This record gives sequence, C-alpha cells and structure tokens, in this order.
Amino acid sequence: MPSSPSAGLPTGPCVVVIFGASGDLAHRKLIPSLENLAREGLLSPSFAVVGVATRPWTNEEFRSRVFGDGASDSGDSAGNAARQWLAERMYYLSGDFRSPETYQRLRELLINVDQQYATKGNYLFYLSTAPQFFSEIPQQLDRQKLTSETGDSWRRVVVEKPFGRDLKSAQELNETLRETLGEQQIYRIDHYLGKETVQNLVAFRFANGMFEPTWNRRYVDYVQITAAEDQGIGHRGRYYDQAGALRDMIPNHLFQLLTLTAMEPPISFDADAVRNEQVKILKAIQPISSEEVPRSSVRGQYGASASGGVIAYRDEKYVAADSITPTFAALRLMIDNWRWSGVPFYLRTGKRLPKRSTEIVLCFKKAPFTLFRNMGISRCAPNLLILRVHPDEGISLSFDAKRPGAVMNLGNVEMNFSYQDYFDSQPQTGYERLLYDCMLGDATLFQRADMVEAAWSVVAPILEYWQETIPGDFPNYSPGTWGPPAVDELLARDGFCWRHCE
Amino acid sequence: MPSSPSAGLPTGPCVVVIFGASGDLAHRKLIPSLENLAREGLLSPSFAVVGVATRPWTNEEFRSRVFGDGASDSGDSAGNAARQWLAERMYYLSGDFRSPETYQRLRELLINVDQQYATKGNYLFYLSTAPQFFSEIPQQLDRQKLTSETGDSWRRVVVEKPFGRDLKSAQELNETLRETLGEQQIYRIDHYLGKETVQNLVAFRFANGMFEPTWNRRYVDYVQITAAEDQGIGHRGRYYDQAGALRDMIPNHLFQLLTLTAMEPPISFDADAVRNEQVKILKAIQPISSEEVPRSSVRGQYGASASGGVIAYRDEKYVAADSITPTFAALRLMIDNWRWSGVPFYLRTGKRLPKRSTEIVLCFKKAPFTLFRNMGISRCAPNLLILRVHPDEGISLSFDAKRPGAVMNLGNVEMNFSYQDYFDSQPQTGYERLLYDCMLGDATLFQRADMVEAAWSVVAPILEYWQETIPGDFPNYSPGTWGPPAVDELLARDGFCWRHCE
Repeated sequence: MPSSPSAGLPTGPCVVVIFGASGDLAHRKLIPSLENLAREGLLSPSFAVVGVATRPWTNEEFRSRVFGDGASDSGDSAGNAARQWLAERMYYLSGDFRSPETYQRLRELLINVDQQYATKGNYLFYLSTAPQFFSEIPQQLDRQKLTSETGDSWRRVVVEKPFGRDLKSAQELNETLRETLGEQQIYRIDHYLGKETVQNLVAFRFANGMFEPTWNRRYVDYVQITAAEDQGIGHRGRYYDQAGALRDMIPNHLFQLLTLTAMEPPISFDADAVRNEQVKILKAIQPISSEEVPRSSVRGQYGASASGGVIAYRDEKYVAADSITPTFAALRLMIDNWRWSGVPFYLRTGKRLPKRSTEIVLCFKKAPFTLFRNMGISRCAPNLLILRVHPDEGISLSFDAKRPGAVMNLGNVEMNFSYQDYFDSQPQTGYERLLYDCMLGDATLFQRADMVEAAWSVVAPILEYWQETIPGDFPNYSPGTWGPPAVDELLARDGFCWRHCE
Repeated sequence: MPSSPSAGLPTGPCVVVIFGASGDLAHRKLIPSLENLAREGLLSPSFAVVGVATRPWTNEEFRSRVFGDGASDSGDSAGNAARQWLAERMYYLSGDFRSPETYQRLRELLINVDQQYATKGNYLFYLSTAPQFFSEIPQQLDRQKLTSETGDSWRRVVVEKPFGRDLKSAQELNETLRETLGEQQIYRIDHYLGKETVQNLVAFRFANGMFEPTWNRRYVDYVQITAAEDQGIGHRGRYYDQAGALRDMIPNHLFQLLTLTAMEPPISFDADAVRNEQVKILKAIQPISSEEVPRSSVRGQYGASASGGVIAYRDEKYVAADSITPTFAALRLMIDNWRWSGVPFYLRTGKRLPKRSTEIVLCFKKAPFTLFRNMGISRCAPNLLILRVHPDEGISLSFDAKRPGAVMNLGNVEMNFSYQDYFDSQPQTGYERLLYDCMLGDATLFQRADMVEAAWSVVAPILEYWQETIPGDFPNYSPGTWGPPAVDELLARDGFCWRHCE
C-alpha cells in the first residue's frame, strides 16, 4: 500500500474475489476503484485481489487486460505506484461458475494468497455476474466452507443489481442467500449510493442548521426526483426488454434517493440506524390500489425520431416487435407520515429523454403574495432547492430577486454550488466508498433484505397492472422529449409542473 | 423624454430644484440619476431641472459642467438622447442661500419654467448642501410660498445627511422643518437605501417562501452588520472630526440595514407600513445604560501604519492632534421582541479597515452534532447567509458539504448569487430609485422623523459616555486591520466570532 495522507484509516487485511473479473464492470469500475483506494492509502498492506471468470487468462493477462495498455504511463507517480502495488497482488482463476471444481481451485488459491499476504482469512466475494449466478455462487462457496466466518475472520458477499424482478423473486433470492449467509454478510449494492451527491445529501441535510427546519410538509409543496437518460438501451435489449424502466430504476436507484431525501434524521450513521429510517419511509408510502394505478403512474415507450435518425424501441436489437416494455416510467407517491403527509413525491425516469440528468428538487410553498399585489408583479415563483446528483454534481437554490432599476420587479435567479469548484479530487468511479465500506463491514450504503422487499411491494400493483393492461398508445413519446403528455398531467392535476419541462 | 421600454410608469410633471448644484453630489450622482431615469422612460415629458449654487455660472456652463466634457460621446444612442433631452431642460440660478433675493429670483424662474414645461407647480427641492442650510433654505422657500401645497400641486424637500448630530439637534431640526413643512413633505434621504441589495433585502425576505421560516431566534444565533472602508477620511477632516464613525454611519446607514433585516413583514409596501415596522425595531432595541456601554460597544482610532506609508488619524488635515474622535465603532444590540429576543446584533464600521465591504450576515444555529460525533469530524460550521450590499452585490450561503472520497469529511462551501451574473443593467448611481420614489410621493425608502429620533435615542448613551470618558488607548488599531482587539472580545464573550476576521 503506497502511503499517502488521508483522513480515513485503512481497511483491515482482506482478499477481494471478483466473480466476472473479465467483464466490463471489473475493468471500468472495480479495479480502478481499488487503485484509487490504494492511492489514498485506504487499503491494508495485507491485501490481494483474485479475479474469477471463464476466459482462459493467466495472472499476467488479467493484470494487463484490466489495466489496459497505458498501464504505467499515467504521468502521475502516486497513481503509478498505487497501480504497481495493486498489480503485484492480483491473481486470476479461470473456471465455470457452475462447476464445483472451480471452487475447489479457488479455495486452494485463497489459502496460498491468504498466507502470502497475511489477509487473515477475510474474503470479500463480489458477484459481478449475470443475475442467474446470484444464488449459485454463494451455495458453491458454502460447500467449500468459503462463506463460513470462523474465529476472527469475516466473509462477505456483494450482490449486484438487479435484485429480483418483482417482490416474489426478490423474496426467493433473499431466502436462498440466507440459507448460506447471515444478513450481515450480504451487501446488496446500488452504485447510485456511491455517488458523491447522494452521500452529500445526508451531510447536507444533517450537518447544516438552516435546511432541516423547512424540510417538511409545512414548507414543502412537492418533491420531484428525476433520473433521465438521453441514450437508448444500447446493446442491453435482451435484459432491458425483460425489465423495463420501472424495474430497472425505481425500486433501487430512485427509491434510494427518495428515502434519503424523506427520512427522519437517524440517531447515528450506523448501517441499521440509517436503513431503519429508510425502510420506515418505504413502509409509509400510501399503497396504490389497482384502480389508482392510471392516475398515479405513467408509462411510456419511445418511437422513432421524426428524422428517422433514432430508431424506435421496438426496432432495437433483441426487443420484441410488439414489446409493451416501458422505456419511461413516472409515479406519484404520497408518504403517510407526520413530516410528509399531503406532499406529493413525483418520480420519473426514462431513456431517450432530452438530456442525461439525475436530480432531486424540493419545491417550497410560495410566500404570501400580499406585498407584491399592487406592484405589477404577476407572480412569485416557488423557491426550488435542486440537488444535482449527475452530471455536474452540486446544489442550487432558485429564488426571486429584485431586478435592478427604479421599479420593483422580480426575476428568478439561482444560487449555485458545484462540487468541482471546491474539491480538487481524483476522478472517482463511484465504487470506492462502497468497496471501502464493505471491507470495513459498514453496510449503511447497501440495501437490506427488508428494504428490497418493501421497495418491490410499493411498485407491485403498478407492475401487475402494466403487465395485465396492454398500452394502446405505445410508442407514445418521441426521442428527445420529456416522455408522454400524460406525465405533465400527473402534476397538472395537483397544480404543479415539472422542472425542465420548458 | 425619450421613449424606451420600461416596467415602471413615468412620474408626473415636476421641476427638480437642486440646492448645491455645483457640488460633487449633483455632478456625480443626482444629474446622472436623472439621466438614467430619462433613459428608462421614467420621467414625465413635463419635466425640468433648476440648479442653485453660489458660483456665477450660466445655464450653458451648468450643463457642460455637470455633464463633463465627454457629454455627447457615450457611444450609446439611447444614452445620448436621454442626455440631450435632459440638458435642454436644465437651468441654473446663481445666488447666496442666505439671501432672500435668491429665493425671489428662484420664484420668478420657477414660474417661467413651470409654464414652459407644464410642470403644474410640482417642485422637488433637493438640499445637497452643508447641514447648516437644512433649516435656512426651507424657511426662505416658505417666505416665497414655494413650499405651500395649493390645489393639486405638491412641494417636497429632500434633506441630505447628516440629520442632526445627536438626539437633541435632530429633534430641533425636525421641529424647525415642521414649522414650514408637513411631515409628508419631508424626505430624509439615506443613499444606502438606493442600493440594489438593500431594496433586494426586502424582496429576498418577502418574495420567497423558504427563508422567512428560519428568520428568527429559533434558528438564528446572531447577526453581523459590517460597513467597512479601506480608505481614510480624505479631505473630510473638518466634518469628520466633529462627527466620528458612530454618528457618521450607525444611526442612519447601519440602522437602516438593521431594521430592514429585523423587521416583521409589513402588510404593504406603503411608506408608512414599512416605516412603522422599522420604528418598531428601533424602539425594541434594549436601552444601553451608561454602565453597560463598555461591554456593549467598542471605539477605535487608527494610528500610522508600521511602514509609515499611512498617516495616523490625528495627523490628518483639519484633525486635532489630540482628537478623541473614533474612526471605528462597534455595537452589540439586543432586540427585545418575540422574533429576536436573545439574538445579539453586532454592528461595526470604520475607516482604514482591510477592505471596502458592506454586508449583513445571519449566522444560523448549528445542527445537532450527534451524527458526526464518531466520524473524526471536529465540528460543524454554522451556516451563514451573507447579504452583500457592496461591492459585488449579491447573496451567498455558506454551508458544509461532504468532501469527495471514501471517508465522511466535511468542507465549508458557498452557494453564490451575484447580481451582475443575472441582470444586465446600466450602471446605477444608487439615487435613481430614491429620486423616482420622491417624485411619485413614495416615502418608503426615506426616514421619518420618529425613525431619526428613535435611532439617535439608541446611540445617545454611547455618544455621551464616549464624550465624557477620554479613551486612554487611542490610537488603538493599525491601518489595514479589523479594528482594536476589543472588537473581537465583544463577540468572543458570547462565544461567537466575526466573519472575515481570519
């Protein structure tokens, strides 16, 4: 571990075992994250990585593949030292995830690596694989006693998304995992929680004295959460046509943003203290009956662009020509608790929207208009607090200011804070914090079984209704627009409108 | 009047009469303000200006003097048209302010101008003179019946600062003025109120829904109001040595900022509605007894700089070698009402401070620290709302955000809004709004007699104590510092510290 100044303590000894090590996620996110952690001095000197995948690579091939060609030319000596240090302790095991023999060999390799690097039998298994292996791998590991925590050593399993495709499959997956693992060994990852602004949301709300007093139904009119993508589905048709916008984004990413925005202050940052508050929000969401689904949700699917430059969703590769999979989903949720009763939370997500943007917007109630009534001012705009998660992470406050001049006239302005203006940091993948926390045994930013199940429960009536009722109007929005017209009506019925709708 | 689009209606017909028309204020502020108003189409077509001063100028000389040499080369056709239009209706009268004959000639001139420009007998008299004429001129005008409002015509008098030098002299001046004028005819000007941010303070507080809820003692720890100048007293020694920092700045400028910050929402922007709320604040200020003066106030006087490049106050021209006049003053005031009880308001102003800056800072109570206790974070900084009046007018919010990286670490950041980033406006002198309002008969931004007297009452015990008790330590601060050390103790006793003190 290269030493470098850091405010955090390094993790304890451990081996990170990556299943699916030849894949995109390992190459683009996981290994770079470990590099960044090494660079910041946050990894134990007793550390190693084992990659497992089907490709017949050697250790050397694995190292050169994941680091790419420009491995040692980053022109940054601390970065090069970290990379070098990491590369020296990276091993590769080629094998079939279904074959017991793979796990026997893994066991033998881990015994060697463990001795060589003094990692004390602490193993972190990262399931960067297709979902069908999420049950298989832990069971195979169990048969080799690789998941049993004995003495002081720990064993943890990180499960990637998607975690089930509905309430039933999520419950089944949870049950299977718990046959061989304790809940505290299971780390259900949601990489949205590795993003700075999501973590900052917690710091912003609870480290500052002036926002929390207005963070409730007395002052907030409504909340909007948007996760928009301008791209289509790329080569993911096989997965996406089975999932759709709601499954793909809402019970995981958007509900994480929703619960961190809406939750009560936890009494500590301990994993269970935070997650207890998040679950309370999910459980306080007003259940949506089948009859209410059409008024509380909107689904959409993109067609071809007028110019023909963008093909329709139904023409994408691996997508059925009569697919009813939504590429756009919006919900109106009410949270029945003392803080939020009566405040609608609007969520929307979709492909082929005008831009890539994830943000949370709190819209505050307007000031009494009395004072400006006789001044030729037609309205006071509501104040908006905008938490920008991606891209250009930061926070803005939109409010009214007086226009210069002899006459009282208001203009809408923004106060703005951008992370990049203040913090000079290495580029981060978003996985650093998650891997670090997992090695430390801090599950705060991971999903607990009851959270996952509560989230699927909320969307279950909508998934069922959408499955049973064929949408007659698909495709119902054009690429580059903010979804079907009904999504505006969803807010207009309450007297509100989306930010960005202009 | 050149026509141009504007959100405001033009004023009614009137003549503006400027006493002291050859002076600096007329040249730098008043005439340019009228030009700006003309440019924005806010002056009546029935409009004229009469300058009165002792210099023996002709009308033409007056026009060329106040506009300077570059009169017609501003390279901006709307600006040139406005200037041209204004120059055509500017007249000059040379005379002694003490001589009745001056006022006879003024009366004759006004009759002519009034007929020529159809100004309907509406006269605005602007006393841009030395304070000794503030009583004299209105009395002389009265003898010529120039201040009597007859029929539909109005007569108004604008009085420049300083309005008295203590409670007694202010009361006397008020009495004298009221011998010949009704209170509604008297416009006591404070040019601070013409600055955009001061007016914006009202818009900011009352047009937005999210600030007012926390604008009280439940959430605000303390308030700082600073009016700092980096310059010395220049050529103003004769005036300044009689006045000093407290008289010169606090009962007028700083109390305007204080009352607009602290007042309750008025029920309208009518002059008396706003001023009633301001007076309520002045009257709610806890009286300071003689014994309390040393703990509630700090006075200072600058010495010479160590390098000798800046001379001591006592060495300035027209200043007594043993002068005890303060060039720095700070007060700690408590407002005894339901909104502010227990919240100290700290005011400071001075010459030869490190920079030129006028700002209001609300310091919010800190968030409970529980959550961050075990995270290696030593403190949460208080949130500051900073209303920058001058220079770089704008609003900032200082708060804590998470530093990027795997570890929870807080960093202090600012959200910022600058007027100049949003509003593209002609440079303003700060007097446009005040002159416009005065012509419209809107006295909201002017001081009422009871405000002036209430303000002097607040500072009276301090003025007396400072007069009676010779400061043993003068000079007690160096040029380029934030005043004497005692000013830090003023806050430190309450557990607080000044912004900018670093």
